Amino acid sequence: MAVATIIGGGVIGGGWAARFLLNGWDVRVFDPDPEAERKIGEVLDNARRSLPGLSDVPLPPEGRLSFHEDLGEAVQGAVWIQESVPERLDLKRRVYRQLQEVCDPSAIIGSSTSGFKPSELQEGALRPEQIVVTHPFNPVYLLPLIELVSSPANDPAHIERAKDILTGLGLFPLHVKKEIDAHIADRFLEAVWREALWLVKDGVATTHEIDEAIRMGFGIRWAQMGLFETYRVAGGEAGMRHFMAQFGPALEWPWTKLMDVPEFTDELVDLIATQSDAQSGHHEIRDLERIRDNNLVGMMRALKHQNWGAGEVLNRHDQRIKSAMPGHVDQIDDLSQPILTLARAVPLDWTDYNGHMTESKYLDAFASSTDRFMELIGCDADYIASGGSYFTAETHIRHLDETHAGARIEVRTQMLLGQGKKLHLFHRMYEGETLLATGESFLLHVDLETRRPCAPSAGIEAAMARIGEAQAALPYPEGAGSAIRKPT
Amino acid sequence: MAVATIIGGGVIGGGWAARFLLNGWDVRVFDPDPEAERKIGEVLDNARRSLPGLSDVPLPPEGRLSFHEDLGEAVQGAVWIQESVPERLDLKRRVYRQLQEVCDPSAIIGSSTSGFKPSELQEGALRPEQIVVTHPFNPVYLLPLIELVSSPANDPAHIERAKDILTGLGLFPLHVKKEIDAHIADRFLEAVWREALWLVKDGVATTHEIDEAIRMGFGIRWAQMGLFETYRVAGGEAGMRHFMAQFGPALEWPWTKLMDVPEFTDELVDLIATQSDAQSGHHEIRDLERIRDNNLVGMMRALKHQNWGAGEVLNRHDQRIKSAMPGHVDQIDDLSQPILTLARAVPLDWTDYNGHMTESKYLDAFASSTDRFMELIGCDADYIASGGSYFTAETHIRHLDETHAGARIEVRTQMLLGQGKKLHLFHRMYEGETLLATGESFLLHVDLETRRPCAPSAGIEAAMARIGEAQAALPYPEGAGSAIRKPT
Repeated sequence: MAVATIIGGGVIGGGWAARFLLNGWDVRVFDPDPEAERKIGEVLDNARRSLPGLSDVPLPPEGRLSFHEDLGEAVQGAVWIQESVPERLDLKRRVYRQLQEVCDPSAIIGSSTSGFKPSELQEGALRPEQIVVTHPFNPVYLLPLIELVSSPANDPAHIERAKDILTGLGLFPLHVKKEIDAHIADRFLEAVWREALWLVKDGVATTHEIDEAIRMGFGIRWAQMGLFETYRVAGGEAGMRHFMAQFGPALEWPWTKLMDVPEFTDELVDLIATQSDAQSGHHEIRDLERIRDNNLVGMMRALKHQNWGAGEVLNRHDQRIKSAMPGHVDQIDDLSQPILTLARAVPLDWTDYNGHMTESKYLDAFASSTDRFMELIGCDADYIASGGSYFTAETHIRHLDETHAGARIEVRTQMLLGQGKKLHLFHRMYEGETLLATGESFLLHVDLETRRPCAPSAGIEAAMARIGEAQAALPYPEGAGSAIRKPT
Repeated sequence: MAVATIIGGGVIGGGWAARFLLNGWDVRVFDPDPEAERKIGEVLDNARRSLPGLSDVPLPPEGRLSFHEDLGEAVQGAVWIQESVPERLDLKRRVYRQLQEVCDPSAIIGSSTSGFKPSELQEGALRPEQIVVTHPFNPVYLLPLIELVSSPANDPAHIERAKDILTGLGLFPLHVKKEIDAHIADRFLEAVWREALWLVKDGVATTHEIDEAIRMGFGIRWAQMGLFETYRVAGGEAGMRHFMAQFGPALEWPWTKLMDVPEFTDELVDLIATQSDAQSGHHEIRDLERIRDNNLVGMMRALKHQNWGAGEVLNRHDQRIKSAMPGHVDQIDDLSQPILTLARAVPLDWTDYNGHMTESKYLDAFASSTDRFMELIGCDADYIASGGSYFTAETHIRHLDETHAGARIEVRTQMLLGQGKKLHLFHRMYEGETLLATGESFLLHVDLETRRPCAPSAGIEAAMARIGEAQAALPYPEGAGSAIRKPT
């Protein structure tokens, strides 16, 4: 089992520890802080909850975590040593000197520094070539970026080995080849931070307004394409050169407090246009637009599931439209036909790379129909909060035809049985007149406390009785009650 | 039907047109560009593909789109007029004068300007109070943010009406109360753009490297929390004041090219800490951490489905782990028992607000097991690319027990029939020894060209025969071949 040593716990060191442990490494922690064990434990709890499920395959068995008071013991046999002590150059240099007296000379010493250049860290070290910057982003157990910054003192093979190990942890090492204070990402963070402080200080916006201005707009965009690729797409067919011609002049306008701007020469435009071609030129602009939109839709719908940020805005918009729909079966005039329980467009994130709606999303749609049916008979959010609900015991789906992203689908629901604790539904999914699929569900009403079946409220019983009576004349559906036959 | 007029087509005007149309408004376009109809059509195609599916309810029927050469005709009866002409103050002012001679005085005139202050736009207007800034973000049909900037000339009721209309379009109007060049978001974009130009010009990083530094790290973070809330969480229990004490000093370090920074006074720290409390103080830091992680996991898994950015990194990591697993049944020694077709942790985005795995995700898991089984018998990506595949015709799921986020689940698959075009599988899902659910699937091998059933390759037939022989001694599973019974 490979061993990593974490020098300095806390949120960043703890995040590193989690990355290594959950990818099967043994981790030894050296931190004089008596609270280190508790702090790292808390980060680990968060990481165990979120990281393993990111993978669609099992991560290796978790490594062993230990805490050490002796530095020599902590680094013994370590292949990777990660330093995350406070941002003081003298302190970091002292740590390296102590480290290098006891550690394996071939181990990689990575520093989590957000600001110092590797050559500054290496100064006065026993073996400068051993030290690189490996700057992570919080939460370290989830975000992939590591800025790997080297100096001329580092051997290329040492850097390659560092990249390999980081990649093996599921990280994305970005090799920054020219040293600069604060590397790359933190220069942007600092530029935004400085501008934000001005806006707050000058009373233009509050912290809340600034955060909304970020996450409701360019923040979502930047989660999937960066600055240049985003602008390349915005520039349209005319491309990057066109975009720059259009927005270049703003450089000379008073759009930021900070006005020492590079001169907007033809040379700079050429440099950027050429780099942008190398970066994204293998995609047509049309393709990039669709990739961008697929990404945005997927992420925004993920946020919708969490009812957060842009996702909360989407839910409110749905709610507004839904408020015009019947809230209870009593508000539906004609109950003698199957009830409309879903009407929607097939979203981009329900489809595979061919644009076909994916198998599992049929159950997604039928489950929504069941939820809507429950709501209509009175098993709504308030009822569920009071302790009763329906659990699905069994589902039978028949796939009869295909459908695609953007198609408008509807589900109509026939109640086969609604009596006591039992609810038996038959959903039919249509695109226009075409029957795409049927979904038969058998549910039991449960007490959410005991998780055992029990009778629903009198109101729900009455609503089910009304539907049962109204739909009594409907023929028993073709395909209901059928099984996948035993091969003979 | 409410009417909106779009002055100036292009990407931004087209995005506005799509927002209005797809939310049921009639849209009239005025743009002397002979290409306007084509350009708006292209934006509309993208919007129709992506926007309706964002909603879980049906959007209203699409409004009517028309193009007009006469300005008076274009604005007749319009409740909203959106100006998106090029960023030249003289041009914009001329447009408003012409507009105000023919439009309804109560209509809202919104400007898409990214830079000008509303009072600059209003200067010399017939009715200054009618004009506001409503600055959108590309793609306008997806991103919710609209910076609504007013001047003292605007009546509060006019602003409220603008907010209501924007909210009705699914947008998020952020009312910027103090005018400033470039409003809020574009000040940040400009600060980052300026810093990025320096980095490219100085040869520190390429456009590609800069984009990776953004989207692999803080970009994903900013898609769900902004600058201040992110730092509040990073500060931990000690909170915003602690965070600022730690990173405030960096303001005086050479971390950006642009160094005119606000003085880091106690007053400024107080102001920000107080605003941050008002913004996020109702959530404990522990809760915010989990909300953040839920959001990140959801978005990163959405990007994984698109195999893009951070999602591509995750897929590569999975692939690395998967490469140690058998690629074909021939590499599995003992085929006499059900085959392991899924082993994973239940991800955060598979659960409801209680942390229970959601009904529809059981089919997600079983569908993955079916994919894996197909792969093992030789129906892998190459085979599918060559034109053959399996389509699921029928599925029967029984829910036997509950499970939660983070639980390690496994699926083991028994082949009930694998002969000719038919494939009949019985999946059992376990958490440890507990049987959580069973999924019975009946699939047909199809020709992807004709979409009709046909025999699979000889290699697949042979692999199925091998499994059939090896599993022949297994008892027929309890629960297989059963139906949801017809109520008696």
